Amino acid sequence: MLGKAYDNEVCSIARALEVVGERWSLLILRNALFAGSTRYSDFQRSLGVASNVLQSRLDGFVDAGLMRRHRYSEQPELHEYLLTEKGRAFAPSLIALTEWGDRFAAPDGPPVLYRHPRCGSDVHSELVCASCGRLDDPVEVEAHPGPAMPAERAERMRRRLTPAASA
Amino acid sequence: MLGKAYDNEVCSIARALEVVGERWSLLILRNALFAGSTRYSDFQRSLGVASNVLQSRLDGFVDAGLMRRHRYSEQPELHEYLLTEKGRAFAPSLIALTEWGDRFAAPDGPPVLYRHPRCGSDVHSELVCASCGRLDDPVEVEAHPGPAMPAERAERMRRRLTPAASA
Repeated sequence: MLGKAYDNEVCSIARALEVVGERWSLLILRNALFAGSTRYSDFQRSLGVASNVLQSRLDGFVDAGLMRRHRYSEQPELHEYLLTEKGRAFAPSLIALTEWGDRFAAPDGPPVLYRHPRCGSDVHSELVCASCGRLDDPVEVEAHPGPAMPAERAERMRRRLTPAASA
Repeated sequence: MLGKAYDNEVCSIARALEVVGERWSLLILRNALFAGSTRYSDFQRSLGVASNVLQSRLDGFVDAGLMRRHRYSEQPELHEYLLTEKGRAFAPSLIALTEWGDRFAAPDGPPVLYRHPRCGSDVHSELVCASCGRLDDPVEVEAHPGPAMPAERAERMRRRLTPAASA
């Protein structure tokens, strides 16, 4: 985990990166979510990541509540790593990252397509405005201070927003 | 940039992380996208990141085409860093990460709310099935091989998917 790296950040992005911001973290979660990996050997084989790094990431995910350790053999004692709801909730972030890569770094087309198994249709990540529906241009999104933003920083954010936009 | 770290990965997530997977990268993009930061000093002041790291990230973003350098003063010669479309396209990933943090790591509520300036309504990241509409449960998403997946790996992916799901 990045630990104290982003400690002065009052920010949900920084807090998410504290648990998945280290190298290999998001690819380990990807394999747990979309490749059915549960055992140390599954991750090791598919990722080729150094074993101390892999073990440290899996232990970190258990500590952070993204995975739980489940014993699937008593003799020898062997564990697998199963995603919790908190871990599965990274799926939208991974799918959004996939779509960036598909658009800007996949000259031969997308390596992976996400589908809704119930109907077989494609699944995409979208930005949706509660009033206007789907937004095609992310430029049309503004950050406003929320309830947990300290007052002084909230005031600075409000000053930065144009009068028309913050009205 | 992570450079060759994920070279054996045929994966759009890995390719996205090659340009934004290093420490501070996504927070620098966040400030460019949502805090109006354009100048080295803006990023420096708001992030408190070591100056060699910040310069290396900004240079890397220019090299990767996520930002362009724009000279705003001739004497002294000073530049600012403006997001390109390729850089702005990380907004959905950042908003999805925000929503994870808001849900699992924001005990006092969300520090930031994303809004559509035209109407003032909230903006959210959603997974949308082309047939069924919004998916509330990311467990309901399956990864299938796309056109750029090498044949052998595509075959392994298909074998892993249950017959019912891959039909």
